[in-house]
Amino acid sequence: MIRILKNVRGVITPTSTGNPWDVQILEGGTVVFNDDTIVEVGSFDELSRKYSEAQSIDGRNGWALPGFVDPHTHPVFYRTREGEFVMRIQGKSYEEIAAAGGGIRNSVRAFREASTDEITELTYHRVRKFLEYGTTTIEAKSGYGLSVEDEIRSLRILKKVQQLVPITIVPTFLGAHEIPDEYRRRREAYVDLIIQEMIPRVAEEKLAVFCDVFCEQHVFTVEESERILLAARDHGLIPKLHADELAYTGGAELAARVKAISADHLLRVSDQGIQAMKEAGVIPVLLPGTAFFLGKTEYAPARKMIAAGLPVALATDYNPGSSTTHNMQFMFTLAGIYMKMLPRESLVAATYHAARAIQMDQHVGCLEPGKKADMVLLDIPNLEYLPYHYAMNHVKKVIRHGRVVYEVVE
Amino acid sequence: MIRILKNVRGVITPTSTGNPWDVQILEGGTVVFNDDTIVEVGSFDELSRKYSEAQSIDGRNGWALPGFVDPHTHPVFYRTREGEFVMRIQGKSYEEIAAAGGGIRNSVRAFREASTDEITELTYHRVRKFLEYGTTTIEAKSGYGLSVEDEIRSLRILKKVQQLVPITIVPTFLGAHEIPDEYRRRREAYVDLIIQEMIPRVAEEKLAVFCDVFCEQHVFTVEESERILLAARDHGLIPKLHADELAYTGGAELAARVKAISADHLLRVSDQGIQAMKEAGVIPVLLPGTAFFLGKTEYAPARKMIAAGLPVALATDYNPGSSTTHNMQFMFTLAGIYMKMLPRESLVAATYHAARAIQMDQHVGCLEPGKKADMVLLDIPNLEYLPYHYAMNHVKKVIRHGRVVYEVVE
Repeated sequence: MIRILKNVRGVITPTSTGNPWDVQILEGGTVVFNDDTIVEVGSFDELSRKYSEAQSIDGRNGWALPGFVDPHTHPVFYRTREGEFVMRIQGKSYEEIAAAGGGIRNSVRAFREASTDEITELTYHRVRKFLEYGTTTIEAKSGYGLSVEDEIRSLRILKKVQQLVPITIVPTFLGAHEIPDEYRRRREAYVDLIIQEMIPRVAEEKLAVFCDVFCEQHVFTVEESERILLAARDHGLIPKLHADELAYTGGAELAARVKAISADHLLRVSDQGIQAMKEAGVIPVLLPGTAFFLGKTEYAPARKMIAAGLPVALATDYNPGSSTTHNMQFMFTLAGIYMKMLPRESLVAATYHAARAIQMDQHVGCLEPGKKADMVLLDIPNLEYLPYHYAMNHVKKVIRHGRVVYEVVE
Repeated sequence: MIRILKNVRGVITPTSTGNPWDVQILEGGTVVFNDDTIVEVGSFDELSRKYSEAQSIDGRNGWALPGFVDPHTHPVFYRTREGEFVMRIQGKSYEEIAAAGGGIRNSVRAFREASTDEITELTYHRVRKFLEYGTTTIEAKSGYGLSVEDEIRSLRILKKVQQLVPITIVPTFLGAHEIPDEYRRRREAYVDLIIQEMIPRVAEEKLAVFCDVFCEQHVFTVEESERILLAARDHGLIPKLHADELAYTGGAELAARVKAISADHLLRVSDQGIQAMKEAGVIPVLLPGTAFFLGKTEYAPARKMIAAGLPVALATDYNPGSSTTHNMQFMFTLAGIYMKMLPRESLVAATYHAARAIQMDQHVGCLEPGKKADMVLLDIPNLEYLPYHYAMNHVKKVIRHGRVVYEVVE
């Protein structure tokens, strides 16, 4: 059925052609879609005449933007970890908490003891929450199981949740998120387990599109990460990488070497790493919420990467330890304050470039003919207002694949 | 009519007796209120038997907390200033923008040209938004008029909005917010205007409870501020002060000297200033949103003030230039990350101490018998979760003076 947005201020969207940072602002514009697919974007006056039979959907007098694409999240866990947030207020660092058996390993122990039904229910609610804040596509990682069965379980939970929530979930296998307790003294055996058992199972059951590794001091070395990602590639999983976050390790260079689709975090990326990413076509996914939530004073050098011609993307890093938020709108604010990204750049980074970072740009990230009708209606007077009125939720309505999936009732 | 909250996890509240940082956590607790006033707080099992005739109100399975009290806001303005946010991203400082005629003076020019109806309508929506984020009492300042008529107009708009929105507004006269354009070369004449015309008019029409001054380098000197606040006191207006924010000027010491009810900001407060505030009973109101939004790396020394025995309060500083947010929940997050305030301390600071900072603690800020039934129902498993799941809105329902004034519909 043909539908048209009415009562809409206009359309603000990146475009998939031309300059990668272009944003179209169509005041008085609207979107026409047929079932789940966009047919035409243009002037409401013209399109409402051209499609006079179209059913109309109220745009709540908002601006229509592409639904946000969050290309880096970790929603499959059991317990939240607010206690560690309090420990950090009291002076412990994230690294100290992790070294003492907290952090990711804390989540792993809890995950293994919890039932699949419990975790599915919790993950369902967490994933549903993204919609309320305007996100219609997420990448979602495993990584709190860290055994063959628990990693498979994580990815199956995501598959189940995909059937329950009207959001697009792109799954990533992250067995290499941490060394679990039982392998602390024989880490090579855990790397072997990932390569010899987990990756083949994940690939065989088609449970993930990407394979990610937390390449970091005290977690996985560059050499281990490379072995894992090359094995993943051999099994048809596309490499991704947590790179150069807390310390420089050459993660960006590795991402380039293994032809990863993205390298994420990059607070400590080197100039050589930036150049290598550019040459290999690796997309930098920046997660300013993590630096913020961990109280860092250093953020990823976004301007340097933009100047180098890299299509920077933004994500929340939603997870129970280092960044617990669903709010992509707030990433615009952090990107502005700490990484000097203009609202226009943040929009492209949070939609089109984010979609590229998870190989979804053929489907989402721009409002243009042929793309999915995934849209968010925002109660803002202009794009600059979005990061400016901060730590708020400006969403009025969310449309995914042509259907209204969330609406604020007044 | 007697009412009781049902389907509530419990009650979390500061108390007005005992240690000023005490928080009571009553799991399985509830609140009974008669019309607009709390009758009893205690176990739901007991109170539902004792008040078996009481009408019940659904607590949405949330925790009941006192409605937030935001003791420092500037909602009476015309245009928002997102353009200046973008200028700051591009490298200009707040001070440079102000010196070039932007900042507060930008708002003043726009305010003077706008009709009272327009500003009233905008202020209405802005004030209404506080309720959605769980705030039931705000202090609200004039300060974008800066002429006798425009300052009176600001305060009358607040009086009008108070009749339209079910939130408690405590008005503050802030004629001394900036030197307006027409007085830049004769600032003494503007100080005289405030003292000789504005303050007497405001007092006579009973338009404000407090008189505030922006005491700061390039704005009002300590001497000018002192003259203004002493004149205000003579007319029955209680002094308040923007003190030691961008530079140390001795603002806290001045607040103590004039017996101000609060000194606000205090990023650069001196040890002597802290001691003077303690001796004079001045309440420090901290506004971490402003430091955050202006990209500062320095925050007010909250731990030092708490250690000195000061009843620290928190506020958003909601205004169009230096802190555009309504979200008191996010102040808990900033207070935790940057000022090392525990969630429990932030709760007291955002309710009971905030109420003290605007002389409303006889009425609001704690859930206890005799206080107003102003409550927020939050969808959180525990208090620590509130700042941890950050940049979100956890509000399910807001009750003010015993009536449901906001509710999330699912």
